Amino acid sequence: MSSTRDIDALIEMMAKLPGLGPRSARRAVLHLIRKRALLLTPLADLMQTVAATARECLNCGNVGTSDICDICTSEKRANGELCVVEDVADLWAMERSSVFKGRYHVLGGTLSALDAIGPQELRIPRLIDRVATEGITEVILALNATIDGQTTAHYIADQLDGQVRLTSLAQGVPIGGELDYLDDGTISAAMRARKSV
Amino acid sequence: MSSTRDIDALIEMMAKLPGLGPRSARRAVLHLIRKRALLLTPLADLMQTVAATARECLNCGNVGTSDICDICTSEKRANGELCVVEDVADLWAMERSSVFKGRYHVLGGTLSALDAIGPQELRIPRLIDRVATEGITEVILALNATIDGQTTAHYIADQLDGQVRLTSLAQGVPIGGELDYLDDGTISAAMRARKSV
Repeated sequence: MSSTRDIDALIEMMAKLPGLGPRSARRAVLHLIRKRALLLTPLADLMQTVAATARECLNCGNVGTSDICDICTSEKRANGELCVVEDVADLWAMERSSVFKGRYHVLGGTLSALDAIGPQELRIPRLIDRVATEGITEVILALNATIDGQTTAHYIADQLDGQVRLTSLAQGVPIGGELDYLDDGTISAAMRARKSV
Repeated sequence: MSSTRDIDALIEMMAKLPGLGPRSARRAVLHLIRKRALLLTPLADLMQTVAATARECLNCGNVGTSDICDICTSEKRANGELCVVEDVADLWAMERSSVFKGRYHVLGGTLSALDAIGPQELRIPRLIDRVATEGITEVILALNATIDGQTTAHYIADQLDGQVRLTSLAQGVPIGGELDYLDDGTISAAMRARKSV
């Protein structure tokens, strides 16, 4: 490489980001260098700020800039509903749909015997605690429809059984989905949960 | 979005990088926030350094950290060969193959009537100047095999005609290439330029 050490190091570091590889990292870095005053300096400043201020909410695990996140501090969101998700990205996806008005609880992963991830490694004890103390009336298990996600949902349902109303997201044909492209499991689930028109 | 303003701004800025979209920018930013001490702070520092030091070589247009790049200052590379490429990324690709031992000239694009890019917008006057003053014996036109690339190559060949030996990269079947997957143009070019075994 003819570029000097810092530029090479920047490419190498960018290439480690999810979604970027060596080639796209080189393209991104060249783009940033070409627009260094407009793009690279502001981006570096912003990263510096976020690195200094971003933290996980001590209550729910959401990412924000305070010890307790905006959703946990908002009284409006204290409607007794608690939506359990695996990851902050899932929380953001739920928020984009703006269908849910309650609070969240981010587990930070799923139970996994293979990776030795038990309830203590996730935020499950904290969840049980919150259900008991925050006046929760309904826990919505919005975990991914994967084997690990569903195993974790079953475990949580067992732990909270009888204490609170437990629900999970409906399964079926996604909006805009074509039957021909759906897997057998989804079609079976949609058929079993069919509704009268 | 439940995340606060700086995090949103960072996602928005990352989503503008080539190769990243809104979804992959969110994934990348979450990844960076999770590893903020290990990844986000060093990345921000490195970007700051590169933003302050990176510049285009005044002679050839390569990206480096000095006014004249390492290749242009290296006496070893002054072998009379000058390789003309469209973009710094092409120069880096040539350097990775380590087949070329001479110097480069980065045009910074191709001639384009539609986008009103003429010879003055590229580094073509500087190229003609370098050929006259740097003791160049051969100019290798390593422009992309696109219509714009080839138009630009023809224009440069016209300008330098008679002053220097002019060559271009060979066209043919790429290493590891399967005939069935190649376009007709490549196969025709490879057939016309066939060699005796």
